[in-house]
Amino acid sequence: MDHARLTRADLDALDAGDKLAPVRDKFSLPEGVIYLDGNSLGAMPVATAGRVADVVAREWGQGLIRSWNEAGWMDLPGRVGDKIAGLVGAAPGSVMVADSTSVNLFKLLSVALFLRPGRKAILSEAGNFPTDLYVAEGLRDLLDAGHRLEMAATADIVGAIGPDTAVVMLTHVNFHTGRMLDMGAITRAAHAQGALVLWDLAHSAGAMPVDLAGHDVDLAVGCGYKYLNGGPGAPAFLYVAPRLQADARYPITGWLGHAAPFAFEAGYRPASGIQRAMVGTPPVVSLAALEVGVDLALSIDLADVRAKSVLLTEMFARLIVERCAGHGLVVASPADAAVRGSQVCVAHPEAYAIMQALIARGVIGDFRAPDILRFGMTPLYLGFGDLWDAVTILADVMATGVWRDAAYQTRAKVT
Amino acid sequence: MDHARLTRADLDALDAGDKLAPVRDKFSLPEGVIYLDGNSLGAMPVATAGRVADVVAREWGQGLIRSWNEAGWMDLPGRVGDKIAGLVGAAPGSVMVADSTSVNLFKLLSVALFLRPGRKAILSEAGNFPTDLYVAEGLRDLLDAGHRLEMAATADIVGAIGPDTAVVMLTHVNFHTGRMLDMGAITRAAHAQGALVLWDLAHSAGAMPVDLAGHDVDLAVGCGYKYLNGGPGAPAFLYVAPRLQADARYPITGWLGHAAPFAFEAGYRPASGIQRAMVGTPPVVSLAALEVGVDLALSIDLADVRAKSVLLTEMFARLIVERCAGHGLVVASPADAAVRGSQVCVAHPEAYAIMQALIARGVIGDFRAPDILRFGMTPLYLGFGDLWDAVTILADVMATGVWRDAAYQTRAKVT
Repeated sequence: MDHARLTRADLDALDAGDKLAPVRDKFSLPEGVIYLDGNSLGAMPVATAGRVADVVAREWGQGLIRSWNEAGWMDLPGRVGDKIAGLVGAAPGSVMVADSTSVNLFKLLSVALFLRPGRKAILSEAGNFPTDLYVAEGLRDLLDAGHRLEMAATADIVGAIGPDTAVVMLTHVNFHTGRMLDMGAITRAAHAQGALVLWDLAHSAGAMPVDLAGHDVDLAVGCGYKYLNGGPGAPAFLYVAPRLQADARYPITGWLGHAAPFAFEAGYRPASGIQRAMVGTPPVVSLAALEVGVDLALSIDLADVRAKSVLLTEMFARLIVERCAGHGLVVASPADAAVRGSQVCVAHPEAYAIMQALIARGVIGDFRAPDILRFGMTPLYLGFGDLWDAVTILADVMATGVWRDAAYQTRAKVT
Repeated sequence: MDHARLTRADLDALDAGDKLAPVRDKFSLPEGVIYLDGNSLGAMPVATAGRVADVVAREWGQGLIRSWNEAGWMDLPGRVGDKIAGLVGAAPGSVMVADSTSVNLFKLLSVALFLRPGRKAILSEAGNFPTDLYVAEGLRDLLDAGHRLEMAATADIVGAIGPDTAVVMLTHVNFHTGRMLDMGAITRAAHAQGALVLWDLAHSAGAMPVDLAGHDVDLAVGCGYKYLNGGPGAPAFLYVAPRLQADARYPITGWLGHAAPFAFEAGYRPASGIQRAMVGTPPVVSLAALEVGVDLALSIDLADVRAKSVLLTEMFARLIVERCAGHGLVVASPADAAVRGSQVCVAHPEAYAIMQALIARGVIGDFRAPDILRFGMTPLYLGFGDLWDAVTILADVMATGVWRDAAYQTRAKVT
């Protein structure tokens, strides 16, 4: 099927041979929807509803305060963190679930600048996810110590690392283009210059194998509600290489990062290890929901997930080229699977309205300003036949021009 | 009954006249437990289980990404914030639900120091909740700009405010002693010296009327999982006086504090109003649970709550004095109701073991190092008869000396 036009039968054959196909039943998905937005908000595992109900009604409602010990609530951030460590190639004791991705970025960026006191540059990529850049700006202004935020084009990142670079802060897979950076090469280049790296794994954790320890990564953060399927606004995670933990100084020194939080000592005394990265009381209900998604990801082989993801993105891009020609849609994610994350981006000047028309027809992707239709490929609950059906609807939306309907032009608050 | 020893009949009479008594049925509480720890973790409202189940299974599971708009998820932090504003005497648009109390303290302390650039002192109270002090230490060290953390004894706070005081950071009701500070007098004294105030409402929001606007308070934070009954690790809230919002500069500048988060602009441009205090994606499931607790608090009059709280603390202290004499228990919370929060603290050198023996018998309070038995009085779900029963068990534990059992000596992780 490589050179001929794809047919529905080709995609059905891929589904028949898909060893991850049975995993779909572990998710609760609405009827009549093809969900291509798991890179923004992952779907709900079937087991989550029961787990959350039990945490609320039994652990909280019946156990009350006793559950901090008896239900292991206090250990949840580290326990789920250790599980996530298993998904991102990190050692036990190097990952904690805490706060939001943005707050964790702030914490670890601050740790990095403290560990490289003579250096003044934070290097990032033009087009990186805005919150990462905003957080860096905010910390730079707060410290008021002559730091600067430098931006390099993707191809120029390695060359831009220099003796004044304190930290290279990058997102592994770009939220907009889906382009995946070479974590190993960039980390090595940073270390060669004495700089640290801080990787944002928002669009890679759970979507593909990540090897933080193998690449000797210094610091990382990631998101709980995308490919880890932890639920809307699920807590985020952070990673600190074991070799850096003893010297890490955190900017927000809350009681759960204290060596003895329940001694209620007057002065701050940092906990050892990754516990030091904690700040406030852990969000128990959300953590329990996240654990279900993480357990599900741990039950399968991420190499299989990546292999299917590569095939899904390839097939989807081919289907758009073959079946939607003549309507000005341009596949904007990388053609080379080696540098492509688990999403397909399609550019069109009227992307917003086209996406609204798709959503109205049950094909849910999202819009990223100014002109991107973004389709996330989630191998755990997406089949190849779904791609055929989604592109059938996209082709119809383009052929009929139904997206021109005024109803699809009004911008919603969240896009 | 004022001068005679209290009898069970006296307490039953108080229950019979308690207009808040019917509210207890709105909470799910375990059989065989007298819960005196709602100041650490509030009890579960009956309605929470259904609301959380609906958010998980329908809004997330079926609505998926569409629920950010269609279920109003993006508005939750402000919507619940406005409701909390109604509980703490704040105007709509001045409270947001976000992050943890510790992270919010970090943000608002930083805002305060930025608004008072020439001043170098953060003034707090000796014995304030440790995380508040730790966070101040951490920010002081991070800024490395000559700030200092000054500690005053309770009686000396007003006198310690001076021309170099940037911010007076205090907890309204002390977590340990239950002593309530005079918010109005201290705020006025701070303003007279040109300083700002930052109040931590962890032990007052939902427990009594608070009048932030009436006292012209500058900044405040509070907790969602104590008297607001939002669930374990519920998100916290923050308050910024409307007159300060336009000049507030936040240290953690995440995308949800941006003027146009979904425009994905390269540079940070602060949102207007209280939205600027936001950082990362809101924790939807936890926020929905919190909203149920907040709605419940809004459905009653906090003046009634305070009146019952005063009576509960008074009766409980009297019962201990009258029924547990001779065992070395010393009531350590203020005798004057005007400066007493909604808890009774009892000192004993063996407080830890005594509390374990109580918990084993269904009387749940908590221990605060080194020697405090802490009993929280939550008027929404506690009756006067409960106090009689709890003190009956305490008297028995003391009379029999059963707390000397080795099983009660081993310290748990969370105390």
